[in-house]
Amino acid sequence: MSHKVYNFSAGPANLPSTVLKKVQSELLDWSDSGMSVMEVSHRSKDFVALAVNSESMLRELLNVPSNYKILFLQGGATGQFSAIPLNISTPTDTADYIITGNWGKKASEEARSYLNVNVVANESTSNYTTLPDLNKVSFSSDAAYVHYTPNETVYGVEFSKPLAKSSVPMVADMSSTILSRPIDIGSYDLIYAGAQKNIGPAGLTIVVINENLLGKARSITPSVLNYTLMSESESMYNTPPTLSWYIATLVFRWLLDTGGLEERHKINLAKANLLYQCIDSSKIFKAPVVESARSLMNIVFTAQDNELEKTFLEEASKANLKNLKGHRMIGGMRASIYNAMPIEGVETLVDFIDNFDRRYT
Amino acid sequence: MSHKVYNFSAGPANLPSTVLKKVQSELLDWSDSGMSVMEVSHRSKDFVALAVNSESMLRELLNVPSNYKILFLQGGATGQFSAIPLNISTPTDTADYIITGNWGKKASEEARSYLNVNVVANESTSNYTTLPDLNKVSFSSDAAYVHYTPNETVYGVEFSKPLAKSSVPMVADMSSTILSRPIDIGSYDLIYAGAQKNIGPAGLTIVVINENLLGKARSITPSVLNYTLMSESESMYNTPPTLSWYIATLVFRWLLDTGGLEERHKINLAKANLLYQCIDSSKIFKAPVVESARSLMNIVFTAQDNELEKTFLEEASKANLKNLKGHRMIGGMRASIYNAMPIEGVETLVDFIDNFDRRYT
Repeated sequence: MSHKVYNFSAGPANLPSTVLKKVQSELLDWSDSGMSVMEVSHRSKDFVALAVNSESMLRELLNVPSNYKILFLQGGATGQFSAIPLNISTPTDTADYIITGNWGKKASEEARSYLNVNVVANESTSNYTTLPDLNKVSFSSDAAYVHYTPNETVYGVEFSKPLAKSSVPMVADMSSTILSRPIDIGSYDLIYAGAQKNIGPAGLTIVVINENLLGKARSITPSVLNYTLMSESESMYNTPPTLSWYIATLVFRWLLDTGGLEERHKINLAKANLLYQCIDSSKIFKAPVVESARSLMNIVFTAQDNELEKTFLEEASKANLKNLKGHRMIGGMRASIYNAMPIEGVETLVDFIDNFDRRYT
Repeated sequence: MSHKVYNFSAGPANLPSTVLKKVQSELLDWSDSGMSVMEVSHRSKDFVALAVNSESMLRELLNVPSNYKILFLQGGATGQFSAIPLNISTPTDTADYIITGNWGKKASEEARSYLNVNVVANESTSNYTTLPDLNKVSFSSDAAYVHYTPNETVYGVEFSKPLAKSSVPMVADMSSTILSRPIDIGSYDLIYAGAQKNIGPAGLTIVVINENLLGKARSITPSVLNYTLMSESESMYNTPPTLSWYIATLVFRWLLDTGGLEERHKINLAKANLLYQCIDSSKIFKAPVVESARSLMNIVFTAQDNELEKTFLEEASKANLKNLKGHRMIGGMRASIYNAMPIEGVETLVDFIDNFDRRYT
């Protein structure tokens, strides 16, 4: 079978099949070394060349200005929830947090251990189906930074463009939107993203940081979370997650080879539009997020009742449409359609939804 | 060719070829899911079963008592250098550090940001070729913990048994010795090990901790380094490094299938004895570490002069004996012969050294 299953997991998520096949083909012998890539030293000539090449490709994809550093760190975005205040604030500072879902909420909660957190917007009142009206938000006059989550994975809400930039450093958790569309890096001072949605396997996190935020880490910052140390050592202060970094590099190559982020954005828009239109025209399903706030990556939808949702998920799984269950916090359904989900996967899901709709109404 | 190269890298290091072949064979379709293991949610039924099974196998291999928790964390051992004081001490506490090499030194330096560090032994005066006489060490009367490094990767020195245990919590960085021989876990309260030597790919770290040390993390502990949070969430407070965890699990299976750690210890002793005997009987090479302190995993040796070392390394590499260069801090040669290095690899190296010895004297 050319495609056994379509995997709509929110993360760890599906990866491009060309990338996986490449990983498989050279798993025992990477770069003519006679060794697996996971067996070679991060300081070997070949791996350092991979790391340099990886950064250069990511810089090209995201069009990163030369005054921004790119860091390849261990762990996931959750590790950055503490790293950010530890690196760019003091304990008496205040940071403004915009909460549009679960991840922004968690980021703000962890930050409270390190500075004063001012929640300037919180969409929990709409059950995270909306985005705040930023004209009505009162930002702190002297915030160390503003933090927000351009795409919220659990509820499926996304800012379609960056927030207006002031002189306050702008920090964004891009875990589930990075590489899905062009980003204006200049609209941010620090972006970060766990790898396991659009980059590669879990265990790698990418940070893009304006150089003017370096050199400010508190003395209690763990070295593995210290952006200055990591920047000075080209992300090799200690052993980086080499296998994940290598796979991420293959994903960058795949993105460049398939037209970069402009092209990717077109495809992602087409995929999301197709699916939202299908849901909006269904008699059984609906998408709770208001139209202007809908995510291109995580399409959340519900059915009329829990029984129907259960039936839908069971039947979908049997039809090899996998991992459509919503996050355990909110239930319902969620189709995560990251870069690696081909449009054929979305078309197959749409056909399945249409058919289900006919059969159960 | 049955074996293209022998890889003596200190880490990331070679992995059992049966494990790598298994990874390759199921890379596109794990556990009949139609998905790669790196594409499935860590909360999926299949991955949770893997995690439970993994812990159970490691518990069996290390004979871990039931009052110890096993954590599978992100990153490497360096991340634990801050995690340890943050989790089990207060800022006014003192901890005793025994320094027998580079890693213990780094651990002690990072700990200084979090508590008072009392270096109770430091073998730098012998250039780390010896172990301290513990009868002459003055431990603090009220230390929060004692920290040491049973095997030092850079200099190749190893304690052949655990230090005597007092009521003070004993903490050990086992990165380059874990799983190489049976461990008496009861002689420690907390052991930790980065995966990239004897466990699996870089990006995973294992912590085995006495439950009585949980519940003491400082409020400024980053959640990803918080043992209590990680213990309460079965190492899934956030997304764990699933691909590395899976590969580690295959390594645990391989160890159990090949006789466990008693058997592994016998093989490792045979490998190390073979190599040390060869070096000791050579006219050109010598092993600087005193006999009672020699590592079973990292065999450090030098030649009469730098030119000969350079020639040796070049010729060895051409003979497919790879990554024998000593750590960049000390030069010379180092053969890391972790579990995955078959005795045939050591025999081949020994033949090569003997031959080199004859040709250059």
